[in-house]
Amino acid sequence: MDTKDWRARKVTIVGAGNVGATFAYALAQSGVADELALVDRNQDLVAGQVLDLSHGRFFFPTVDIHAGDKHDYADAHVIVVTAGTGQKPGESRLALLQRNVLIIDSIVDEIVAQQSRAVILIVSNPVDILTYVAHRRSGWARGRVIGSGTVLDSARFRYQLSEHCNVDVHNVHAYILGEHGDSEFAAWSMTHLGGVSIDRFCALCQRCTDWTAERAKIEQGVRDSAYHIIDYKGATYYAVGLALTRIVASILRNEHSVLSVSTPLEGEYGLSGVSLSVPCIVSQEGIDRIMLAALTPDEQAALERSAGILRDTLAQLQAR
Amino acid sequence: MDTKDWRARKVTIVGAGNVGATFAYALAQSGVADELALVDRNQDLVAGQVLDLSHGRFFFPTVDIHAGDKHDYADAHVIVVTAGTGQKPGESRLALLQRNVLIIDSIVDEIVAQQSRAVILIVSNPVDILTYVAHRRSGWARGRVIGSGTVLDSARFRYQLSEHCNVDVHNVHAYILGEHGDSEFAAWSMTHLGGVSIDRFCALCQRCTDWTAERAKIEQGVRDSAYHIIDYKGATYYAVGLALTRIVASILRNEHSVLSVSTPLEGEYGLSGVSLSVPCIVSQEGIDRIMLAALTPDEQAALERSAGILRDTLAQLQAR
Amino acid sequence: MDTKDWRARKVTIVGAGNVGATFAYALAQSGVADELALVDRNQDLVAGQVLDLSHGRFFFPTVDIHAGDKHDYADAHVIVVTAGTGQKPGESRLALLQRNVLIIDSIVDEIVAQQSRAVILIVSNPVDILTYVAHRRSGWARGRVIGSGTVLDSARFRYQLSEHCNVDVHNVHAYILGEHGDSEFAAWSMTHLGGVSIDRFCALCQRCTDWTAERAKIEQGVRDSAYHIIDYKGATYYAVGLALTRIVASILRNEHSVLSVSTPLEGEYGLSGVSLSVPCIVSQEGIDRIMLAALTPDEQAALERSAGILRDTLAQLQAR
Amino acid sequence: MDTKDWRARKVTIVGAGNVGATFAYALAQSGVADELALVDRNQDLVAGQVLDLSHGRFFFPTVDIHAGDKHDYADAHVIVVTAGTGQKPGESRLALLQRNVLIIDSIVDEIVAQQSRAVILIVSNPVDILTYVAHRRSGWARGRVIGSGTVLDSARFRYQLSEHCNVDVHNVHAYILGEHGDSEFAAWSMTHLGGVSIDRFCALCQRCTDWTAERAKIEQGVRDSAYHIIDYKGATYYAVGLALTRIVASILRNEHSVLSVSTPLEGEYGLSGVSLSVPCIVSQEGIDRIMLAALTPDEQAALERSAGILRDTLAQLQAR
Repeated sequence: MDTKDWRARKVTIVGAGNVGATFAYALAQSGVADELALVDRNQDLVAGQVLDLSHGRFFFPTVDIHAGDKHDYADAHVIVVTAGTGQKPGESRLALLQRNVLIIDSIVDEIVAQQSRAVILIVSNPVDILTYVAHRRSGWARGRVIGSGTVLDSARFRYQLSEHCNVDVHNVHAYILGEHGDSEFAAWSMTHLGGVSIDRFCALCQRCTDWTAERAKIEQGVRDSAYHIIDYKGATYYAVGLALTRIVASILRNEHSVLSVSTPLEGEYGLSGVSLSVPCIVSQEGIDRIMLAALTPDEQAALERSAGILRDTLAQLQAR
Repeated sequence: MDTKDWRARKVTIVGAGNVGATFAYALAQSGVADELALVDRNQDLVAGQVLDLSHGRFFFPTVDIHAGDKHDYADAHVIVVTAGTGQKPGESRLALLQRNVLIIDSIVDEIVAQQSRAVILIVSNPVDILTYVAHRRSGWARGRVIGSGTVLDSARFRYQLSEHCNVDVHNVHAYILGEHGDSEFAAWSMTHLGGVSIDRFCALCQRCTDWTAERAKIEQGVRDSAYHIIDYKGATYYAVGLALTRIVASILRNEHSVLSVSTPLEGEYGLSGVSLSVPCIVSQEGIDRIMLAALTPDEQAALERSAGILRDTLAQLQAR
Repeated sequence: MDTKDWRARKVTIVGAGNVGATFAYALAQSGVADELALVDRNQDLVAGQVLDLSHGRFFFPTVDIHAGDKHDYADAHVIVVTAGTGQKPGESRLALLQRNVLIIDSIVDEIVAQQSRAVILIVSNPVDILTYVAHRRSGWARGRVIGSGTVLDSARFRYQLSEHCNVDVHNVHAYILGEHGDSEFAAWSMTHLGGVSIDRFCALCQRCTDWTAERAKIEQGVRDSAYHIIDYKGATYYAVGLALTRIVASILRNEHSVLSVSTPLEGEYGLSGVSLSVPCIVSQEGIDRIMLAALTPDEQAALERSAGILRDTLAQLQAR
Repeated sequence: MDTKDWRARKVTIVGAGNVGATFAYALAQSGVADELALVDRNQDLVAGQVLDLSHGRFFFPTVDIHAGDKHDYADAHVIVVTAGTGQKPGESRLALLQRNVLIIDSIVDEIVAQQSRAVILIVSNPVDILTYVAHRRSGWARGRVIGSGTVLDSARFRYQLSEHCNVDVHNVHAYILGEHGDSEFAAWSMTHLGGVSIDRFCALCQRCTDWTAERAKIEQGVRDSAYHIIDYKGATYYAVGLALTRIVASILRNEHSVLSVSTPLEGEYGLSGVSLSVPCIVSQEGIDRIMLAALTPDEQAALERSAGILRDTLAQLQAR
């Protein structure tokens, strides 16, 4: 037996567009992974991203970054799927989704064929649908196929609360749950600043005159974040690169972190047959446990509304 | 006007024993400060600590570590006071305290005489008494004289909960409040794991059969931590070095972090004339705001008990 | 005197395009700066970049990122200028340069008018010309106006040598000097791997059969790097974002690092009236000292060739 | 096949005294390892160190720290041996050494019996002798049994040069070679500051009037460093904790870093039958390659002198 049986930490990224490459950049800077493989059908794009990233290696902690192919699924610890396609002129939303399902299916098939031991992290949108589809296709244990879900949305929510209350964002504990999309909602009952509930904090702070209106504004602001950024600059990739780094670190370092990733439910919160975001404990096996938060009736209703919307889409997919 | 008006970040540490030097070590490794001055009457000890630390400079982020004197109070951003004396044979607890008060008074006098703009962080024990005394002696704004309080105790508490629940310690939000000493208490009502209250978490987890008994055991374990370590190895310094690094980073980086530092109360929680630990927001000015947590009646009673014990000691001091 | 006289570390970035925003991203992740202001005439672009970056604040060390204006020059510690304009159809290279000079001049005028105490770091291309112009315009001490020069090129060179020799890039010590452009050259005589000169290393390694040919290939590869990446993906920004983070950290943390930044020469290496890259020691004042490497006659000739090319351009500018 | 085949990064530390525990502290803060096991015959000492370290877990990157036993050799990635015994009254230096050899032999036997796949890093002194002995005892490939050698001494040397020349220590490239002890020497011919040889640098700097005398003083200062610190404070452990963290990171992250570790020579530099420090490339297999620096005749002679001293000691050991 020799030392070669264990290897440096490897992450394979599928899709070398802005999201995939920005994630590679943040991950390399974090020092958490030792080897990054970028896989994309567009070989020129991969070559360019790998060069631009590798030229920074003197400034990164030691890391190997290279172009990859399906063989890089075999020995990866985490495979992060950011690949997807855009809408063709005249194409329906459902037709587009169907094409993206085919892309995900083919990637999952290749991963499974390589007998990969990795955890799969789906980032491509609509992430909840594609996570559900990918998990079904893989035949793997539920915890090993994760969607990035509302980890980014929760970070946006924390940022807005941090600004509003002038408290370090690292002391704001708050979650956006449900669909990563228009039906997502803020779990206000879980929201605390340094151990003090947001309602108590705001009651004492008294800097804003109408907290109910502010709450609604903040929640809507989170929901519209991506739209705003896309209006301004065409795409969003910086914050998502960091959110993915956080999730992947939690897997690679076996952290048991609480993260609002998307996971197929099997009865939790009274829901099943759908993947969406609830607080989960993430470790080297993927999702170790799903946390059962004590949602208020309103929050539970919002979660069920998200589930219904996602199930409708899944049903449409299967009907075709 | 030239660039010399701003300087690298400087921390002056008073007391070069195990706590002061271990803190210097952790702070240097963190990269948060650029210059560390160690001040101690024992010149040999300072010389030895500075050499042993400086020999690691190739491995640290860039940092200057040197022996200092009172002139290093003038341009420090934070002054961390770990100095103190031990019990003489036959000396009463009060006599020892009186001697430590004299040490702190003389250090504060020197700092004030140097027209320092620093925030003072008192670590010497009994930290709540000495923080109260140092603040009074300085004549400075309340927020600029801080005690390390129960930041370490809260970290011990989080560690124990993390182990008990198998959740990443960084997702455990919990505070030990009151005196840094035997009357400290766990603010269970503020305790959350990733947004879920500890009671809810434990009710669902069901791994321990008697959560009430476990709670008492964990709280007592935190209270006895220092005693255990001292029994085992004579002194405790590793975790406290990190706790101090956390507090100092929050000041240097203007973080507005929530930390259970010791601060003189002036009516908050119905208390005054005493310094003890409650959740505070720490920024470059020192304590920016004191948070008013919604304590349960039991917790409020425990806080008042701590305050009473500390006020008795202060009264004895003044009576001499 | 109060603590408000010292502030968190502030970097103002002029130009919120790919280079400016990617630099902000890497700098925020590094934890070296506490406040980032982004300034750009395109207010939508700034708003979008600031939002996308700020949504990552939960994952960054504590940092404040906001849109800025000329008032953010006053209290910045470093001002990084990435602004510039592209070629209009039919525009000559000289006419384009003239327009970029006007942009730099107006930025420098605003910085000076704000009585800024910052160090200015010019990144806009052609960086050597614009550094020379900016320094002249500012009237400031030579060391306070720096060009990013060949810091990135040197990192590319080190990466290629690291790959070639299978040695950690952090143990490769090598510099590209002269113009940041086609006349730049590898200072082979300064090139070492862990204390062993590259020629000695290669003589013993014997993995490549024709080291002279390999040398030429590596040097040309560095020179063509940007062209390759631009061919592949249209622009280069990841590695440069890290190179700028490295330079800015060296200033903010008063590191006295050796970096091949661009600086106006005043007799060093027998040259003057031109700004180009030679090894410099960078500290909180900007350039602390220019190092006088013992170049070979060939390397000295290459440096003079670079200087000649740059001086010709400067002369053309002044002739207009 | 499941994800359990790969595990978090584990380091087992044998010996929980100041060096072992300080190394654990620095390693935990670095975030490079995910699991640390401390092994020591003194169970109370281990318990105390583990508690003091674990109480800092909220402030560390996620890491598990626990007491260990021989079973923690089986799945460790690196085993760091700091155990050793002190001199008894009247005991000869050779008798003491013989007792330490027995300790190392028994540890190596247990490691081998556990079919460990780890790299062994010997820190116990005299490190060169014990590395040689441990390698022989293990029967393992040469590169898998490493001594910490002069990595610390080289860092001390760099620190002194950095101070002398006012250049960031991270730009000082310099090695102390040979025995980790009185016969060690500075490889001046390999010494560079940012690509400029030390002689050239000093010739131009002209701040010191007698560079030859300064050189001798610096070299002697490095040699006497440990003695000075021990005189001042009884023991040295801070810098060595960081040096070990550097070596272990290079193994865990497969860095191919150049480090002056101690390795049994088999003809390199004309030497064999002895372990001492020369520049080596360290990766996940341990020592990947031994670098053959172009030493001057004086340096080569000094290396041979070190080898002779160490061989004499080995011969005395075998004679008993």
